[in-house]
Amino acid sequence: MELRIDRQAQVPVVQQIVDALHGWIRCNKVVPGARLPSVRQIARINLLNQSCVVEACERLTAQGVLASRRGSGFVVAVPASLAPGQQDVSGFAGADINQCPPLCELQLGGGSLPEGWRETDDLAYAIRQVSRTDMAGLFSYSSPLGLPALRQQILKRLDRLDIHARDSRILTTAGASQGLDLIVRTLLKPGDCVVVESPGYPLLFELLRLQGIKMLEVSRTPHGPDVAALEALLHEHRPRGLFINSFHHNPTGCSLAPVVAQRILQLAREYGLLVIEDDVYADLCSGPGKRLAALDERVIYIGSYSKTLSSSLRVGFVLANQAVIGRLAEVKMISSMGASGFCESVLACLLANGAYGKLVERQQKRLDRDRQTALQLLEDAGWEVFGKPVGGLFIWARSRMRDFAQVQAQARRCGVVLSSMTAFSPQGASNDWQRINVACACDPRARAFFRATASDRPPAF
Amino acid sequence: MELRIDRQAQVPVVQQIVDALHGWIRCNKVVPGARLPSVRQIARINLLNQSCVVEACERLTAQGVLASRRGSGFVVAVPASLAPGQQDVSGFAGADINQCPPLCELQLGGGSLPEGWRETDDLAYAIRQVSRTDMAGLFSYSSPLGLPALRQQILKRLDRLDIHARDSRILTTAGASQGLDLIVRTLLKPGDCVVVESPGYPLLFELLRLQGIKMLEVSRTPHGPDVAALEALLHEHRPRGLFINSFHHNPTGCSLAPVVAQRILQLAREYGLLVIEDDVYADLCSGPGKRLAALDERVIYIGSYSKTLSSSLRVGFVLANQAVIGRLAEVKMISSMGASGFCESVLACLLANGAYGKLVERQQKRLDRDRQTALQLLEDAGWEVFGKPVGGLFIWARSRMRDFAQVQAQARRCGVVLSSMTAFSPQGASNDWQRINVACACDPRARAFFRATASDRPPAF
Repeated sequence: MELRIDRQAQVPVVQQIVDALHGWIRCNKVVPGARLPSVRQIARINLLNQSCVVEACERLTAQGVLASRRGSGFVVAVPASLAPGQQDVSGFAGADINQCPPLCELQLGGGSLPEGWRETDDLAYAIRQVSRTDMAGLFSYSSPLGLPALRQQILKRLDRLDIHARDSRILTTAGASQGLDLIVRTLLKPGDCVVVESPGYPLLFELLRLQGIKMLEVSRTPHGPDVAALEALLHEHRPRGLFINSFHHNPTGCSLAPVVAQRILQLAREYGLLVIEDDVYADLCSGPGKRLAALDERVIYIGSYSKTLSSSLRVGFVLANQAVIGRLAEVKMISSMGASGFCESVLACLLANGAYGKLVERQQKRLDRDRQTALQLLEDAGWEVFGKPVGGLFIWARSRMRDFAQVQAQARRCGVVLSSMTAFSPQGASNDWQRINVACACDPRARAFFRATASDRPPAF
Repeated sequence: MELRIDRQAQVPVVQQIVDALHGWIRCNKVVPGARLPSVRQIARINLLNQSCVVEACERLTAQGVLASRRGSGFVVAVPASLAPGQQDVSGFAGADINQCPPLCELQLGGGSLPEGWRETDDLAYAIRQVSRTDMAGLFSYSSPLGLPALRQQILKRLDRLDIHARDSRILTTAGASQGLDLIVRTLLKPGDCVVVESPGYPLLFELLRLQGIKMLEVSRTPHGPDVAALEALLHEHRPRGLFINSFHHNPTGCSLAPVVAQRILQLAREYGLLVIEDDVYADLCSGPGKRLAALDERVIYIGSYSKTLSSSLRVGFVLANQAVIGRLAEVKMISSMGASGFCESVLACLLANGAYGKLVERQQKRLDRDRQTALQLLEDAGWEVFGKPVGGLFIWARSRMRDFAQVQAQARRCGVVLSSMTAFSPQGASNDWQRINVACACDPRARAFFRATASDRPPAF
C-alpha cells in the first residue's frame, strides 16, 4: 500500500496518512472486515515513522472507519464509501464482502483536485470564526435566494469575469449539481429535447436521462462546439436548450473562441434557445476570455466553490434573470427547504477576508506549472493532445498505442486508474481519448505510465 | 420593535439581540434601505442597555445584514430573506422596495422550535472539534449512502424506537426534505396517485404537485387517518402510496393508535401500498408508541435532525429496504453529488458523545411543561382542541370566535401571526383550525391573544 505523503506540505504527516488511508479505503471500495497491511509494513513501504501510522489508524478508529482487532491489527469497520460520481451505487448497497481490496491507485482521470492540494488553515479558521459569532447560521436554513452577504461576494467575483449583475439575479445552490438539477426540473419537462456537448459531463447526461429529457449531441472542437452542426440540430429539432462548458471544458480542457461564442449567441436568439453555461472550473484559471453570460444577459450561468475551496460546504450558484431565479428558488424551497446557513456564512467569510482569492491564485499557479509539465510528458510519450488547454484541470489526450486494452494494462501495472472509455459520451459510445487530471499527471505513477506507453510501439500516426 | 430577550438564557444578551433583529428583518421581509428604529428606541422599549444594542447592530453590519448611515442610524443593507417555508418566493425576487416593514411578530403557527430554544455550546464545540481533526470531511462529499459512522449512530437511536435495522438500509439526506424529494422522484412517476392526510404537511403537497403526482385526501382523526375512508380510496383508486406522519402529526400533534397502525399495515399488504412514514418530530417526545416501521420492514421511514439540533446542518435520513436505498442513493448522487462530509461528521460527533441525547431530553421536558400550560391557556379561553397531544410541537385548535377575520384581527393587535387558513389542506380548502406551536404558546403575546379571543363573545358551541 503506497501512500502519497508530501513532506513539504502544510498538512501534518499524521493527517496526511489519515487522509491517504481513508482515500485508499474509499477509492478501492474496501469491504468491511478487510485487514489493512500491518502498521510496520505501511511504515516501511512509505518511509514513515511507525508511531505516526499508529496514530493515524487510531484516529480512523475513532471516526468509525477502522476497527482495531486484538492480535490482527486494523480492519475496515464499515462498508467503505464509493468515490463520488461512481455509478455502481446500488451495487455498493449489496457489496460482496468476500471481494479482495486492490492496492491504492492514482485516479488519473479524476474530476477534482486531489486531497493533497486542498488547504486547511483558512477554511478551518473561518469555520471556527462563524461557529463563535453567527448563532442564527448555526441553526437556520439560509434564506431562499441564499445568504445576502454571500450573494454580494459572488457578484464581486463575477465582476472580474465581466459579468455585471444585481444580486436579485443570484440564487445559491447546494453545489453546481443542485443548480443543474433545479434548471432541468424547472425549465424543462419530460420529452423536451436539448443539445449537449460530446464529449461532455457524465453526471449531466444521467440527470437529463433521469428527468426524461432527450439529448442531441454536438461535437466539441478545440474552439467550442461545432457551430455548423449545432445550427443543423437547431434547424431540424428545435431543442429547448444547450448545456455548455464554455471555458476549461470537461473533459477536453479547451475554451470557446470569441467567434464561436458570438455565433452561439446569435443562433440562440434566432432559435429561441436557452443557453445554460456551466462554468464550475472558472476559478482554476486567471486567463482572459469572455463568458457567454458576459455577452448576453439571457444566458443562465452556473458556478461553484467545490472545485477550489471545498466540496463539503456544498455551495454553488445560478445567475439568471429575475423571473427564472424566482421559479428556481421556489423549487429549491419545495425540494430542499433551502441551503445551510452555516456553510454559506463560512464561504462568505472566506470571500470577504480575501483568503479565497489568495487560495485560487496559488492553485492557478501550481496548475499552470503542472500543466506545462504534463503536456511535455505527453509529448515525450508521443500522445496526441486535443487542443492545448491553457487553464483548468483537464487535458484530453490519447496514446499512440491504439489498443485500449494494452493502454489499460500499462496503467494497471503503474498503479494508475484511467477514466472509462464511454463515460464522456452522451450515448455511452466508446473512444480512445483519456481525460488527464493535470493535478495528478506529475505523480510518479503517472510519469511511469506515460513512459510505458511511449516505449511499446513505434508511432502509428 | 419588541424583541424577545431571555435574561435567564445561556446565550449572551448581545447575541440574542443580533438574532432577534436578524429574525425581525427576515420574518418581516424588510426591504433594503428600510431604517431600523433608533438604538435609543430599541433599547428603551426592550429595557436593554444602549451599548448592547449598538454592539449587536455593528455585528450585523459586519455580517452585511445592516449598513450604517451617517446621521440616520442603521438601515437594512440587502434584501431581507424570507422565513423558510414561505411561499411567496418569486414575489420576493421582485420585492417592492417601497413597502413598509411591519412590527416584529410572533409566528404562533411556526413549524420549528424558535431560535431562543436552540442551544449553541455543544454544536459549536463539535464544529470546532471536527474542523481540527477531520481534514477529509472539510473538503469532500460524504459517501453516497452517508458517513458510515453517522449511519451507525442513527441506527442506535432507531433502536430506542424498536426499529432494528442494518446500516445498509440507511441513506443520509440533506434534511427530511431531500428524503421526501428522492422518494417522490424515484419511486413515483407523474400521473401516479397517492394518499395524503388532511390536514397535513404543506410542503409535501407542493412537492407532489411539482412532480405531477395526484393526491387523494384521507381525513386525520385524533387516532390517525380515518381507516374506513382509506380503505374506500384504496379500493376505488388503487393509489401507489400513503404519506403519513404517524406520531406528533403535523399539524394536529396527535399520534396513531395501535389498532389504527395495524389496520393501515394490513391494508398496505392487501393493496400493495407503499407506506412512507415521515417521523421528523420523533425526538421531540420520549413517550411510547410503535412506529409503522417498527411493525413492518416494508415501510419507508424518514427522520431528521433539523427540528431538534439544527436546520443548518441539513442532515436527515431515509430507512428502507436495500434495493430501494440503492435506487435512492443513485438519484441522490445524480441530483446532488452527495451530502456535506463536514456536516455529517459534526452530527456523528454529537450523537457519539451523548450531547444530542441530552439536548433532546431537555427539549422534551421543556415542551411537556409548555404543552400543559398551552392546553390550559386554550381551555381557559374556551378553544376547542383536536385530540390532546402528549408529545411533539403542535396543538390543533380553534377559537370559539368562528369569524376568522375577527380572530385574525385580535392576533394582529397582539403581535401574533397565525398560520394560513388553507395551508394544511391538500387542495387549499379553508378551515378555522389553527396550528399552535407549543414552544410559542407561552409567549406573552400568545397569552394576550388567547385572552382576547375568550372575552369577545359567549361560547358558540
